[in-house]
Amino acid sequence: MAVNLLPPEPKALLRVAGVELGYTYAGIRKANRNDVTLLRLEPGSRVAGVFTQNSFAAAPVQVCREVLSGSGEVRALVVNAGNANCGTGEAGLAAARRSCEAVAKLVGCAPGEVLPFSTGVILEPLPVDKLVSALPHAVESLAGSPAHWAGAAEAIMTTDTIAKAASSSAAVAGKRISVTGMAKGVGMLEPNMATMLAFVATDAQVSASALKQLVKEVADESFNCVSVDGDTSTNDSCVLIATGAAGNEEITGAGHQGYAPLRQALLDVAQRLAQAIARDGEGATKFMTIEVGGAADRAEAARVAKRIANSPLVKTAFFASDANLGRLLMAIGNAGVGGLDVSRVDMYLGDVQVVERGGRAASYREEDGARVMKAAEITVRVELGRGDAGARVWTCDFSYDYVKINAEYRT
Amino acid sequence: MAVNLLPPEPKALLRVAGVELGYTYAGIRKANRNDVTLLRLEPGSRVAGVFTQNSFAAAPVQVCREVLSGSGEVRALVVNAGNANCGTGEAGLAAARRSCEAVAKLVGCAPGEVLPFSTGVILEPLPVDKLVSALPHAVESLAGSPAHWAGAAEAIMTTDTIAKAASSSAAVAGKRISVTGMAKGVGMLEPNMATMLAFVATDAQVSASALKQLVKEVADESFNCVSVDGDTSTNDSCVLIATGAAGNEEITGAGHQGYAPLRQALLDVAQRLAQAIARDGEGATKFMTIEVGGAADRAEAARVAKRIANSPLVKTAFFASDANLGRLLMAIGNAGVGGLDVSRVDMYLGDVQVVERGGRAASYREEDGARVMKAAEITVRVELGRGDAGARVWTCDFSYDYVKINAEYRT
Repeated sequence: MAVNLLPPEPKALLRVAGVELGYTYAGIRKANRNDVTLLRLEPGSRVAGVFTQNSFAAAPVQVCREVLSGSGEVRALVVNAGNANCGTGEAGLAAARRSCEAVAKLVGCAPGEVLPFSTGVILEPLPVDKLVSALPHAVESLAGSPAHWAGAAEAIMTTDTIAKAASSSAAVAGKRISVTGMAKGVGMLEPNMATMLAFVATDAQVSASALKQLVKEVADESFNCVSVDGDTSTNDSCVLIATGAAGNEEITGAGHQGYAPLRQALLDVAQRLAQAIARDGEGATKFMTIEVGGAADRAEAARVAKRIANSPLVKTAFFASDANLGRLLMAIGNAGVGGLDVSRVDMYLGDVQVVERGGRAASYREEDGARVMKAAEITVRVELGRGDAGARVWTCDFSYDYVKINAEYRT
Repeated sequence: MAVNLLPPEPKALLRVAGVELGYTYAGIRKANRNDVTLLRLEPGSRVAGVFTQNSFAAAPVQVCREVLSGSGEVRALVVNAGNANCGTGEAGLAAARRSCEAVAKLVGCAPGEVLPFSTGVILEPLPVDKLVSALPHAVESLAGSPAHWAGAAEAIMTTDTIAKAASSSAAVAGKRISVTGMAKGVGMLEPNMATMLAFVATDAQVSASALKQLVKEVADESFNCVSVDGDTSTNDSCVLIATGAAGNEEITGAGHQGYAPLRQALLDVAQRLAQAIARDGEGATKFMTIEVGGAADRAEAARVAKRIANSPLVKTAFFASDANLGRLLMAIGNAGVGGLDVSRVDMYLGDVQVVERGGRAASYREEDGARVMKAAEITVRVELGRGDAGARVWTCDFSYDYVKINAEYRT
């Protein structure tokens, strides 16, 4: 039950010139659900990405890193759902490479211009034969329409209940450019550099170095601000595609006049996708925004926000709409902020001040807290009283259904 | 539903000369449940303690730290369940001090010789009048019998389903000494220096400095090895009481011949209590031991073990008896072990090798994993292949009942 989240309407999505999407059913995930997705890019397209910081990076993540350590010129991306191809050793790497070779042959490029992505169960061999056999059907279905973005967003899902896609546009160096992105992932989710799988494409022309900078900046203010359960996946991948088809003067770096508007359009799409991930968090009944201000630096603020977002006790209290707000204090106190003077800490639940100088606010009444807790969307704001830095995290509550979904994941 | 845990049988507990326990009903916790406990110690008794590392340390924890920064001579301990007296500011400190003054008057000592402890809801004022009014009844009931230890272990509980107490004894410098301890706490539980509330008493004669060393060493190898949900409480307190009534030659430090046998007897009791906490973890249906070896140092091993123990995805897989063991790899990879060479990582589930050099073991069969997962007690062993250090953590699974207990905690 996602919180205030609807499937993407194709008419709200923009075509991105230079990107075509195809998808099909290979039988890797579940019966009768599309599970293989292909993106074909126009020659000259560039891709930059950020990937999981988990030591057990999946085989496709390792291959992506290899490919993107080169020029970043990419002609195709292949995605399978249902199997993570992780903890699969040399055989897993060979399977990822084989899927790239098969795609290269079909779209007419070099295997080193194909990026592979997998998401699903860890520690089980990827059924690469099924994947390769299904690829011709994916190629046949290639098209750049908004409906194809919506279809692809659905084909990359695992435990997601709703597909996630969004668009934006901007005037960049005198040209109108489009941005469309899609993402999946609702559990094993505390991205550390990027969420499970996110693909954001633009037709803007961007230099390789500017694209690398953009993907880091954008991921940091969007996907890296989401946490469902604090578990960083082995397969997190966020890639930014720039086809250059808009024909704008190439954006060469942060100093270029087109950088800021493009960054804003990308961030707009990425933040909507990131919020969609928390809204569709496994078993979610509430969408929470945790804002921490007054921190000594951004890292400290983020640590406090994530500690709150990941506390099972905080999450179950929100599920129950129970204003058991001492649990928020507990979480703040556990964030490892050295020398925190608790007598300077304030906290607000929505518009209600709950904590004043480290203790229960004199004005706080239980019924005010209870009123805010009943809402489906709740903002918690913490002021640490140490400095000017802040951070924000989007998360969801912890319900019976989280346990159910994860207890029954493989059945 | 605790895992293989029975209430303490009074006949299995030992009297500790110099310690008397009394308890009564003050109406702080729930109707008709004892919630105030008093321990009276013989003159000359020494106490040492370790306390929560949470920045929002509760008022009683602050008072305990003050008292124990002195000589460590203590004549009484007072414990209330149902209210944590945390996030209560100056009023909370005053309430804690008032309870110490009331106890001091009743038992005939100085207020600075009384230690206060609270456990329960955070951010709500302690009903100190109720507590103080109930104290005379607690004093009337004081006795040193094993049955009183069992009764006190019950009176300090909050969401615990079963009281936790244990005894051991040893020959120390020619004298037979006794150790009896009790503990409570089954949620908001990843002790960082000590569990929520644990009281371990011995009649051995121990110097103040040796007692301080013992409480640190013992807590580190017992209560600090437990995690239920990764949330460190604001009220964690573990104290070690030595009355000296056994009349042994004073144990003055680690070099003394009585130190090792006493340490072993204390550890025996503390580890049984620590395991009892995990067995009675909120909603627990499984008891898991996570052993990590081959680490560069103990801290690294403990980090990996705790990351596994705290992963909601790992815990829900154990609840489901589902051998979804890739989640264990994911957790290892998230422990922040810099430069981890995953190709040297092995993992065992009970006696079954699951991971060999970072990938699925060639010998691993799903039915073997499934067999181990069905048991109520499961050991996971990880070998990191980096060095000789190791650590062990006890934990429990994550069930519907965890959500239920914490969603309904205040109702």
